[in-house]
Amino acid sequence: MFKINDNYLKLPGSYLFSNIGKKVNAFTSANPDKKIIRLGIGDVTLPLAPKVIDTLHSAVDEMGSAASFKGYAPDLGYEFLRQAIATNDYKARGVEIALDEIFISDGAKSDSGNIGDIFAVDNKIAVCDPVYPVYVDTNVMAGRTGEYNVETERWSNVIYMPCTEATGFAPELPSQTPDIIYLCFPNNPTGATLNKAELQKWVDYALKVGAVIVYDAAYEAYISEEDVPHTIYECEGAKECSIEIRSFSKNAGFTGTRLGFTVIPKELKSGDTMLNSLWARRHGTKFNGAPYIIQKAGEAIYTEEGKAQTRQQVEYYMNNAKIIRDGLAAAGYSVSGGVNAPYIWLKTPDKMTSWEFFDYLLNEANVVGTPGSGFGPSGEGYFRLTAFGTYENTLEAMERIKAL
Amino acid sequence: MFKINDNYLKLPGSYLFSNIGKKVNAFTSANPDKKIIRLGIGDVTLPLAPKVIDTLHSAVDEMGSAASFKGYAPDLGYEFLRQAIATNDYKARGVEIALDEIFISDGAKSDSGNIGDIFAVDNKIAVCDPVYPVYVDTNVMAGRTGEYNVETERWSNVIYMPCTEATGFAPELPSQTPDIIYLCFPNNPTGATLNKAELQKWVDYALKVGAVIVYDAAYEAYISEEDVPHTIYECEGAKECSIEIRSFSKNAGFTGTRLGFTVIPKELKSGDTMLNSLWARRHGTKFNGAPYIIQKAGEAIYTEEGKAQTRQQVEYYMNNAKIIRDGLAAAGYSVSGGVNAPYIWLKTPDKMTSWEFFDYLLNEANVVGTPGSGFGPSGEGYFRLTAFGTYENTLEAMERIKAL
Repeated sequence: MFKINDNYLKLPGSYLFSNIGKKVNAFTSANPDKKIIRLGIGDVTLPLAPKVIDTLHSAVDEMGSAASFKGYAPDLGYEFLRQAIATNDYKARGVEIALDEIFISDGAKSDSGNIGDIFAVDNKIAVCDPVYPVYVDTNVMAGRTGEYNVETERWSNVIYMPCTEATGFAPELPSQTPDIIYLCFPNNPTGATLNKAELQKWVDYALKVGAVIVYDAAYEAYISEEDVPHTIYECEGAKECSIEIRSFSKNAGFTGTRLGFTVIPKELKSGDTMLNSLWARRHGTKFNGAPYIIQKAGEAIYTEEGKAQTRQQVEYYMNNAKIIRDGLAAAGYSVSGGVNAPYIWLKTPDKMTSWEFFDYLLNEANVVGTPGSGFGPSGEGYFRLTAFGTYENTLEAMERIKAL
Repeated sequence: MFKINDNYLKLPGSYLFSNIGKKVNAFTSANPDKKIIRLGIGDVTLPLAPKVIDTLHSAVDEMGSAASFKGYAPDLGYEFLRQAIATNDYKARGVEIALDEIFISDGAKSDSGNIGDIFAVDNKIAVCDPVYPVYVDTNVMAGRTGEYNVETERWSNVIYMPCTEATGFAPELPSQTPDIIYLCFPNNPTGATLNKAELQKWVDYALKVGAVIVYDAAYEAYISEEDVPHTIYECEGAKECSIEIRSFSKNAGFTGTRLGFTVIPKELKSGDTMLNSLWARRHGTKFNGAPYIIQKAGEAIYTEEGKAQTRQQVEYYMNNAKIIRDGLAAAGYSVSGGVNAPYIWLKTPDKMTSWEFFDYLLNEANVVGTPGSGFGPSGEGYFRLTAFGTYENTLEAMERIKAL
């Protein structure tokens, strides 16, 4: 008789966005004349850049002719894309990454979920709280997290690193020793980041305790301040302890186009075993590559035109972020994020819970955001707004909030 | 100190295609004037159908305009594609599959590798021998297979079902009871298939012993005989015991375009738990969908034009298969497959090993195929040729083999 992986049964329901949807639908039904502005989810809205569109068209044409048709891609991804990444994302920042240390994938969500495959079940993970739910949920599925406590909303075998006002929304080194540390900077959901000295402290810590850092740099393109590292490999020793996950979703609007990559330097070892080899084996056995036309589109982002056009998109969203930050501050809110990230993290006023503030904002301003408690217990009393709306809607949302 | 998943270290090297590559390179260097014909790997060569190309272009245009731009896809995949699948692949064959029983993915390799996630580690798998290596290797990674015996080329905790001349290249019901049974029909590598009564026998067996069948139907489009089921759900009771995995790689040439899907009927349960819910959770947590433009291309395959054009591609390859079958038979070989599958499975002459025959064919006819032993010990003494070359090359390869 076959047996299921009953770790799946331990997962609490994933109701955050469905609850938001239900509340918004109920409000819309009751108030069909009201115009809702959605600043809740982390999905982009600007169309793909013209250079990306042109490249997709020409790659499609290649697929229509026998002479230029492409079948299965190389296991690690096309060299043209890995070369563009090595040159532009790493060499340009003084970091040497070899082509066979880069693995092209269909996105950061898959990679950050699948990376657990190459680790033993009996590793202890540490995560920020609040946190992107995929890190924890995929470790629950793998049986790494112990038991869930509904009261505390915490797993018995997970080390939580609170990121609150008291810690400047950044994690502090944990008192218990973890084996795998998930870090995401610039951060989703808080928009916080670490400067180079702060990130170096994490690398030093990981090297000292023998932990591996899974570094999610999906929002790297939004960094605007000088001292914030764009890759963890800017830190000394990071190659011996860090895996870096990157995405094209937010820097080039690829949420519906699907492309990302993971870097595993050959220096990262367990005994004599390179983690690079383990991931190469997984990548070659359980994945068959991102589509050729999408990999070509990825390469186009690194051309001069592609860089300029995607930079413009990021600037458009970051202008929205500034409008939200300034608007909320003017309205008297305590606000962080939005400087190196498309996420603005605000403290709910008058000790409202995150959900109370959600209802208040929906009912009074017809603006939809995301309750901070949806990202973990330390998110309670906070609220996330995103910069991915249109300029006009973002302005209007702030006018409404200021008028409350 | 972090620990790796040391099941990965048990995996023997995956040298089949790299060994073939080395031998071919060595031959080419020594014989630069000889024209090599490759009938070895299972990759398609015809360009994408015109209807697919047109659809890709128009979907790319949609992504270039704010009004029609698409971000994150629905978790299960776009409804337009799931509807086309439900209607054309199932309803047209008398099978009712609900839209939320279909999960769009980036391909059958990912799905057949990842499906193991929803099962406990202590399930015993049964596989055909010879077999597509992904089924076994991904179970090795999950820790399900016990220890590898280099002599027998077998894992201690895997049930092997030999598919040899004696069994008509189809598996017989195993004497040990498995929990998960991997079946691929039409088969890679042997090209064999099961008729409906034979497949029904497997479904009945799975229901009797409480096993789940993972049914890989990637080559369904190549079925030419009346009595061969196109989906396992044509068999009575299959919904209670079977997961079906499909691919667009071979029916529409999507090996480099990446699209597939998995069907998990809600009737398939472990106790009260629907496997459909477990896979939905995995799909939503560790995957972010196939690209919108690729899903649109998938839908195009189900239009009248798309069907006619992809049918033509399959017929082109099946004509090659016939040329290979007939050619080999005329040359005195014992041959099977190639009637309902793009793979031709031949018995090596004069008791040559699979690799001896590989060398013989490479040196004497300058034709590259795949040694049967690369797919498992029961493949020893056999050899796989594929129908995915050009018509002209296929003809010439057969002329050369007949002249040996």
